[in-house]
Amino acid sequence: MRRRGLLVATALLAAGTAAPGIMPVAMAQQAAVPEVLEKRVFEAGAFQTRGGASIPNTRIGYQTMGRLNAAGDNAVLICHFFSGNSHAFGRLSATGPAGYWDAIIGPGKAIDTEKYFVVSADTLVNVNVPDASTVTTGPASINPDTGRPWGMAFPVIAMRDFVEVQKRLLDSLGVKRLALVAGPSNGGLQTIEWAAAYPDFVQRAMPVIAAEIDAWMQGWLDIWEAPIRLDPNWREGDYYALGREPPLRGLAEAWKIVTLHARDRLWAKQYDRKLPEGQDPARRIGDRFAIEKWLDDAAAARARTSDANSFLYMVRANQLFLNDYPSLAAAMEGAAKRWLVIPSPTDRVFVHDGAQEFIEVLRKAGKAVETAEVTGPLGHLNGVVGMAPLGDRIRAFLAE
Amino acid sequence: MRRRGLLVATALLAAGTAAPGIMPVAMAQQAAVPEVLEKRVFEAGAFQTRGGASIPNTRIGYQTMGRLNAAGDNAVLICHFFSGNSHAFGRLSATGPAGYWDAIIGPGKAIDTEKYFVVSADTLVNVNVPDASTVTTGPASINPDTGRPWGMAFPVIAMRDFVEVQKRLLDSLGVKRLALVAGPSNGGLQTIEWAAAYPDFVQRAMPVIAAEIDAWMQGWLDIWEAPIRLDPNWREGDYYALGREPPLRGLAEAWKIVTLHARDRLWAKQYDRKLPEGQDPARRIGDRFAIEKWLDDAAAARARTSDANSFLYMVRANQLFLNDYPSLAAAMEGAAKRWLVIPSPTDRVFVHDGAQEFIEVLRKAGKAVETAEVTGPLGHLNGVVGMAPLGDRIRAFLAE
Repeated sequence: MRRRGLLVATALLAAGTAAPGIMPVAMAQQAAVPEVLEKRVFEAGAFQTRGGASIPNTRIGYQTMGRLNAAGDNAVLICHFFSGNSHAFGRLSATGPAGYWDAIIGPGKAIDTEKYFVVSADTLVNVNVPDASTVTTGPASINPDTGRPWGMAFPVIAMRDFVEVQKRLLDSLGVKRLALVAGPSNGGLQTIEWAAAYPDFVQRAMPVIAAEIDAWMQGWLDIWEAPIRLDPNWREGDYYALGREPPLRGLAEAWKIVTLHARDRLWAKQYDRKLPEGQDPARRIGDRFAIEKWLDDAAAARARTSDANSFLYMVRANQLFLNDYPSLAAAMEGAAKRWLVIPSPTDRVFVHDGAQEFIEVLRKAGKAVETAEVTGPLGHLNGVVGMAPLGDRIRAFLAE
Repeated sequence: MRRRGLLVATALLAAGTAAPGIMPVAMAQQAAVPEVLEKRVFEAGAFQTRGGASIPNTRIGYQTMGRLNAAGDNAVLICHFFSGNSHAFGRLSATGPAGYWDAIIGPGKAIDTEKYFVVSADTLVNVNVPDASTVTTGPASINPDTGRPWGMAFPVIAMRDFVEVQKRLLDSLGVKRLALVAGPSNGGLQTIEWAAAYPDFVQRAMPVIAAEIDAWMQGWLDIWEAPIRLDPNWREGDYYALGREPPLRGLAEAWKIVTLHARDRLWAKQYDRKLPEGQDPARRIGDRFAIEKWLDDAAAARARTSDANSFLYMVRANQLFLNDYPSLAAAMEGAAKRWLVIPSPTDRVFVHDGAQEFIEVLRKAGKAVETAEVTGPLGHLNGVVGMAPLGDRIRAFLAE
């Protein structure tokens, strides 16, 4: 089974990770990597969720670069953000784009694939269902008991379930220890879950633009998803049948919130006092400002490459961050020891004071914590597209 | 004509300004003001909007406290926030609640009604249409040409239009000069518009939790209103006819965004890892966390006391902040001279760096700018409910 990553790249550019003209610059600084990676499928089999439900046939896609050593301890796991997939590094076709963290992962780069065996997998309930290069198990998958898509009958998935399926994948690959687990945003949350769940297996943890999911963030996640439930085409999740329209309007509004929330004021300045051709919002209540038009278009494009029910399940997985523990502090007590925590100071999702509190919890738990900051005009998304300047810090962290 | 403010107070407590247990404390520190104020109606007559449209009969509600002096120059204008109305001070009935800034307005208080004649009015397109104490002209008003509600045929209203109608009201009251114009949030934006439009009429300006509406904020305002347009009951704004359901679900989702956005992490901590009775979101995808349940209930209550179309028009008025000027800097060049700017450091709507940039623009324009900070657990809403500790600063500012 071989799938290509072209659609994913389109999706990311549309609303996920970068404004046109920003990501390409960062990537142009990297030498081209001619190697084309293969996207593989891991059949995880029957899986029992943290919530106690059973999924008969679990599968996720993944990609690797580099070689595992004989001891099985030179592995690095990269976990993806809310709207992403395994495509963190390399190219999935000769002419396709590079992965979102390609600036720091590859031969001779900060996470050097000549030294490390780097793995990245699609999560369960991944939102990129219509994308041919994403392989996931979620509400759009076929329930073998009925022969039809699960829809909202799919079991609730917790962040920890992401970790457990990835652990099976790593076991199947012969990995005995992770030199590093890392990822941005939702990937940073998975990193923290990994460090709590497998403190000896995880030698180093590098969560980027991630901190606790407290009630405040649970509320925001609810706001992200609310437009989907409002769309009459959502039909309580029962929209997969032939002839039914998926809830694309609601899904687009949901992506619009994520898209703006994950960016920042500096990025938006290009739209200040700009009007789209023919629009006059000072006179016509239905007309749009330039920023609204950009959000409309980006979000509509993103809706076409994702699945509304999967968005709801991905929100819940985030809301269930560290749900096995009574508190963040309790979860971090026995967690992995070495940390490099990288917030973005202008992050409007994981705001600066929340990031500082998370670092404080790690220090109080006695961990070896280093910190760095990722900067740029994109707020939260700096942690996806602005990692290149942090290469040396990451390299040094890995060498310790 | 005499209307009472009971419904307004309920609405504010439900989702607008305070969590139960927070506002009452601040208010309990103030001596009771036995005087019951009368809510009056100002018939502004025919009005031409900045967008060039005509409204044949414009009316707004207002309230006053104190007495205008012979020179007409001891007046203070208080402008209200997005979801508020004229009820900034005093009581509209003997048993009803005090106004939202009652801690700093009244006999002997920072804005001393024994010295100043304080006026506050309902804006045009005020959202509190079902509230009997709010008097406004907007999409829910009757269009005299058709005998039916305007709906989305109502002209677009800009922030500057709010100011122009208030100017007519002040002229009708004999006010020659404002010793102070002030207000929180949307009221702070009106304050800034006032200072730009009437620099000689306005002696002092005190915008609280307000800064520029740039493209970033225009985008957020669009996100606030999006759920209304998604609700099938909205019907392009044509829902006033008997037998039609208003778009209460969409309106509630809109309020939910405003409600969370206007608060902060510290406030939300009370809901950390709490579940409502009988809810198990780790096992059932339809179940809710405590913070979600609180937001659901608060927003549903707020939807019942407001009008969806008016919400859309209020959003647009905010998006059209300083729309008569090429830039914020240009607007501030000729603006009023004395400023006391009061941001909330944990404001997630008008974020801290945006507030600092606004202050910098005023300084570059050569204004006399003082600053203070309003603090508390409520983020943006600190500027509505947390003003009591700033009384001395405000008193001193007025004495300069």
